[in-house]
Amino acid sequence: MPHIIHTVPRPDPQIVAALGKLGTATIHEAQGQSGALAHTIRPIFAGMKCCGPACTVKSHGGDNLMLHKAIAVAQPGDVIMHDGEDWFESNVWGEIMTTGAMARGIAGLVTSGVVRDTEAIHAKGFPVFSQGVSMKWCTKAALGTINHPIIVAGVAINPGDIIVGDDDGVVVIPLARAAEVLEKSLAREEKERVMMAQLKQGKTTVELLGLDKLLAGMGLTEE
Amino acid sequence: MPHIIHTVPRPDPQIVAALGKLGTATIHEAQGQSGALAHTIRPIFAGMKCCGPACTVKSHGGDNLMLHKAIAVAQPGDVIMHDGEDWFESNVWGEIMTTGAMARGIAGLVTSGVVRDTEAIHAKGFPVFSQGVSMKWCTKAALGTINHPIIVAGVAINPGDIIVGDDDGVVVIPLARAAEVLEKSLAREEKERVMMAQLKQGKTTVELLGLDKLLAGMGLTEE
Amino acid sequence: MPHIIHTVPRPDPQIVAALGKLGTATIHEAQGQSGALAHTIRPIFAGMKCCGPACTVKSHGGDNLMLHKAIAVAQPGDVIMHDGEDWFESNVWGEIMTTGAMARGIAGLVTSGVVRDTEAIHAKGFPVFSQGVSMKWCTKAALGTINHPIIVAGVAINPGDIIVGDDDGVVVIPLARAAEVLEKSLAREEKERVMMAQLKQGKTTVELLGLDKLLAGMGLTEE
Amino acid sequence: MPHIIHTVPRPDPQIVAALGKLGTATIHEAQGQSGALAHTIRPIFAGMKCCGPACTVKSHGGDNLMLHKAIAVAQPGDVIMHDGEDWFESNVWGEIMTTGAMARGIAGLVTSGVVRDTEAIHAKGFPVFSQGVSMKWCTKAALGTINHPIIVAGVAINPGDIIVGDDDGVVVIPLARAAEVLEKSLAREEKERVMMAQLKQGKTTVELLGLDKLLAGMGLTEE
Amino acid sequence: MPHIIHTVPRPDPQIVAALGKLGTATIHEAQGQSGALAHTIRPIFAGMKCCGPACTVKSHGGDNLMLHKAIAVAQPGDVIMHDGEDWFESNVWGEIMTTGAMARGIAGLVTSGVVRDTEAIHAKGFPVFSQGVSMKWCTKAALGTINHPIIVAGVAINPGDIIVGDDDGVVVIPLARAAEVLEKSLAREEKERVMMAQLKQGKTTVELLGLDKLLAGMGLTEE
Amino acid sequence: MPHIIHTVPRPDPQIVAALGKLGTATIHEAQGQSGALAHTIRPIFAGMKCCGPACTVKSHGGDNLMLHKAIAVAQPGDVIMHDGEDWFESNVWGEIMTTGAMARGIAGLVTSGVVRDTEAIHAKGFPVFSQGVSMKWCTKAALGTINHPIIVAGVAINPGDIIVGDDDGVVVIPLARAAEVLEKSLAREEKERVMMAQLKQGKTTVELLGLDKLLAGMGLTEE
Repeated sequence: MPHIIHTVPRPDPQIVAALGKLGTATIHEAQGQSGALAHTIRPIFAGMKCCGPACTVKSHGGDNLMLHKAIAVAQPGDVIMHDGEDWFESNVWGEIMTTGAMARGIAGLVTSGVVRDTEAIHAKGFPVFSQGVSMKWCTKAALGTINHPIIVAGVAINPGDIIVGDDDGVVVIPLARAAEVLEKSLAREEKERVMMAQLKQGKTTVELLGLDKLLAGMGLTEE
Repeated sequence: MPHIIHTVPRPDPQIVAALGKLGTATIHEAQGQSGALAHTIRPIFAGMKCCGPACTVKSHGGDNLMLHKAIAVAQPGDVIMHDGEDWFESNVWGEIMTTGAMARGIAGLVTSGVVRDTEAIHAKGFPVFSQGVSMKWCTKAALGTINHPIIVAGVAINPGDIIVGDDDGVVVIPLARAAEVLEKSLAREEKERVMMAQLKQGKTTVELLGLDKLLAGMGLTEE
Repeated sequence: MPHIIHTVPRPDPQIVAALGKLGTATIHEAQGQSGALAHTIRPIFAGMKCCGPACTVKSHGGDNLMLHKAIAVAQPGDVIMHDGEDWFESNVWGEIMTTGAMARGIAGLVTSGVVRDTEAIHAKGFPVFSQGVSMKWCTKAALGTINHPIIVAGVAINPGDIIVGDDDGVVVIPLARAAEVLEKSLAREEKERVMMAQLKQGKTTVELLGLDKLLAGMGLTEE
Repeated sequence: MPHIIHTVPRPDPQIVAALGKLGTATIHEAQGQSGALAHTIRPIFAGMKCCGPACTVKSHGGDNLMLHKAIAVAQPGDVIMHDGEDWFESNVWGEIMTTGAMARGIAGLVTSGVVRDTEAIHAKGFPVFSQGVSMKWCTKAALGTINHPIIVAGVAINPGDIIVGDDDGVVVIPLARAAEVLEKSLAREEKERVMMAQLKQGKTTVELLGLDKLLAGMGLTEE
Repeated sequence: MPHIIHTVPRPDPQIVAALGKLGTATIHEAQGQSGALAHTIRPIFAGMKCCGPACTVKSHGGDNLMLHKAIAVAQPGDVIMHDGEDWFESNVWGEIMTTGAMARGIAGLVTSGVVRDTEAIHAKGFPVFSQGVSMKWCTKAALGTINHPIIVAGVAINPGDIIVGDDDGVVVIPLARAAEVLEKSLAREEKERVMMAQLKQGKTTVELLGLDKLLAGMGLTEE
Repeated sequence: MPHIIHTVPRPDPQIVAALGKLGTATIHEAQGQSGALAHTIRPIFAGMKCCGPACTVKSHGGDNLMLHKAIAVAQPGDVIMHDGEDWFESNVWGEIMTTGAMARGIAGLVTSGVVRDTEAIHAKGFPVFSQGVSMKWCTKAALGTINHPIIVAGVAINPGDIIVGDDDGVVVIPLARAAEVLEKSLAREEKERVMMAQLKQGKTTVELLGLDKLLAGMGLTEE
């Protein structure tokens, strides 16, 4: 049922800031290999990175009425997380909406739809993750929801969950797990740093992870 | 029936030049949300832009015989607009043809096929819009047409229609509507400039477009 | 049957070095329009280039156990050539493996699977050709082969075959044909250089390739 | 611009009836290998066949407002030919519309969109060619055109053109060429009948088409 | 975290039986145009129909360990609802598992993965909805969950939700809404029956739905 | 290099006949989970089944010159195995070629291309496995090979290898392994028959395969 919720739980800004410095792959692993959107959601330009609490939006395919409203509803720092179905021939976001969103301090857009004005969006430095690009118009004719639970690219998202996006894609951190995931991510980063130092000194992952024993146990032979 | 037409109507060069300064999304909207090729046609590198009258070419899939001829038939300033079907495993254009086309002053290539030598084409600064990249060879064995009406990526194109391409894709402006579309595009650009200024001052598109009234009329509730 | 071969025939390093200076499209043509992987295998960033003998690896989809082992098995200068099936939602390679591979002098990775940490890989300058990007985890649970014949993206590859990758994709040169293909590629490059010079002087490919006679013979008419 | 035309040229019913007895592949060949829609347009069940003059309809993706109107505008015997873009997650046609269309004597539907109630449509014996099936709803919110020229799956269609669909897909016969194409199709059918009789007696197409001479001329060797 | 729940809330069997007589498209509309899985989930043969409470299963892509367990965990009448990711080259279900599932009274399978032995499954009369067919093996190496909330093809599903599948796809009815949705579906069916009777008597949907007024209000013109 | 080999090794007809009674999934498992073509190769109608030695054919995409020749080269009982690349908009096989092939006793066609006249082929009872259907014409202009090694849908095939196709897809049995694979397939069939009998008596695969111990060892918990 179409409906908007204005007041939603929000994560600790310090945790959000700390998560924003981590890579999405690290976070995905650290929270138990979960939360990654499907690989079809990509940054519109390499190097884009965003982090913030989700303002969740659900639209009918190829309609951006609720996204216009969401720009007015979202809080500064929010990432607009948009379930716009898989419609590739009508963009739901362009330069005008980017301008409006930036003026309101919005931190980024993740959409299962497609966008336009990618050059201008890139020049303005606004991070956008989408399924593609189309210049074609969309309707402003269908209702939806804002700040209700949604599903984007196979992942369930609640308003206030933390969204992190970079060149590897987009990952969702449930609000309740934010502190735990941050801690585990930092531990994992440290562990990877150590492993990479060992690799540079000539070790292999076969040695570091004990894979030869596993391989032999499975019956692999060599000559 | 295979056939070539050498003399076709051509647009006013000043209008072409003016259209070339506009974005494709603006033009698409200005001419009544029409003329945009399917989203599968992309520039081979970000930042490519082309504008010119169409020299239309129709080939059998995976055959570039007619494209070679088209380079000799097209007028300086023309964009070669190529219906090469949807065949992804044989390129129809590479560095040699780019060199030949540039020597003759051709302004760009749009093809539903795929291309190769993308690095060299990029270095030379020749704009190419295609459905992908493949190094694989194609035949030179099938006839087609040049400067007859064609369809590329869902849009009908006549020789002399104006083709504009940028990061948002490719749009076709019918020759007879060129002046009108230019005027409407400029008006739309101005309108967007005003709107973006208002957005920067804190307005939202909900206010500027009166969307709250629309949303309420459709029965949206908020809390 | 899972098995690893450590000693495989290897090409002449001088021939490998010389092939590495050529474009993949040139090589593909020079060896009789063969050896090109399907167009779905792409460099993860524009401008990547690799050349080296294949260390062939076959895995179950979404499992990178054999790739870890391959980093330890491959010789310096090898390109790891990986048949990882078409599984887009689990990466098989990231920054850790890149670090390990570079420490061992490996020249690049070509995989039918997907990868992660693309930004870090790009920064390190390691060439990777894949079918896409995903941050999602994969298993380390299935055996496979190393240095046995494999098929990647429609092309049969034997260990020691020479792999060349660039912006146009990836081509495989059979070990036994390396010297011949190098010679033919250089001849083709020279021929293209001459043709491009002629094109710059105003010739067309129609003249240079005698296409008008072919077109007329096929029944093409012009007006 | 949204608009409906009620009076359009219509083909000779006897020619339509005769074309309806021919296969689409035969017609496609007979009219010079043209007019075939892309292979993505398929009958929703094997064995469906339709033939009739096109009542052309253009909609916005995922909107069936104009299709409802078209059922009221089309003449008995017409095939509704629908450009509904490539939107797979909202059906534009189901049992209700089938019932209405059959009551008015409409001969079939070809749509680039998707449909639902396929079991009921099949039971009623109404031929439908589409890009897929989805139970999901669509909007009734966007204007379009009826009986204007359209493009469906890469083919230009004018109202009154004859549409033939069967298990091989859908082909469009321009109204002006109907008699000629019928004649050529019948000739081709006869030629194929003769050829198949010869094949049954042990000849091969290599002999009947003289291909060995062609193959040898191209340099093929055998052993 | 891998975990199995054995005791889950279950719907009223009479409501399940009544919903099983309705079409999925009717249910989808009746519950507010929600709950439909993506169009990529299809019955493996036309005419398959299933209805029952969901036993939800989540696996790693290309691994059916949890599905084997689910056959032992599910209650008679359950539909196994399986999030197996989008992996097309390893089946997760075949004749053996069908035999086991039927012996335990399981009502059907819906999987985002692919299956094999389709002929045998069809002959046994067991309804299966999947994304495709592959004979290729899968691993039994990764844990997952049973009777936890999952997402399949874009829809969130809780154990005990009612699953209905037919030729139009698969729809999910939240357990708490079962009675309401049944009632609304029956009302909708009755309304459609009336409408179809009127259509057979010569009315059009334009008249019955008052679309001409809507079209005129939107500015459509006719001639 | 284009070339035809007329004399190739051929399997024992009794082994071919025996393999033809087995399902492809059984054979795929019995020969070590190998030999299965990608899932995109499908029978054009449910219920098609073929078995025979491969007559291997390699063509350029969208060209069937070599297939015409192959009908004349193949031996009675052969399955024509065709690498025709992935070109979906030009069929390479129809009713005429089916008639010719049947007259010569050919047992079936497997092609990575697409076909037409599916209704007529089905009526004649000739098994065809392809990637799709298109009525569109192809060229007869490019050479290729007959009875040389090829790759189709990711699998390497030598002339004389045994091809089995059914509703689960197509599997290739290397000639040298035919007797061994037959024996292992029969053993596997027997094992599955026993297991299915046990399942019908109320056992589960969890019990029969000892999966509970595996699951518990991996750390799965239940409640």
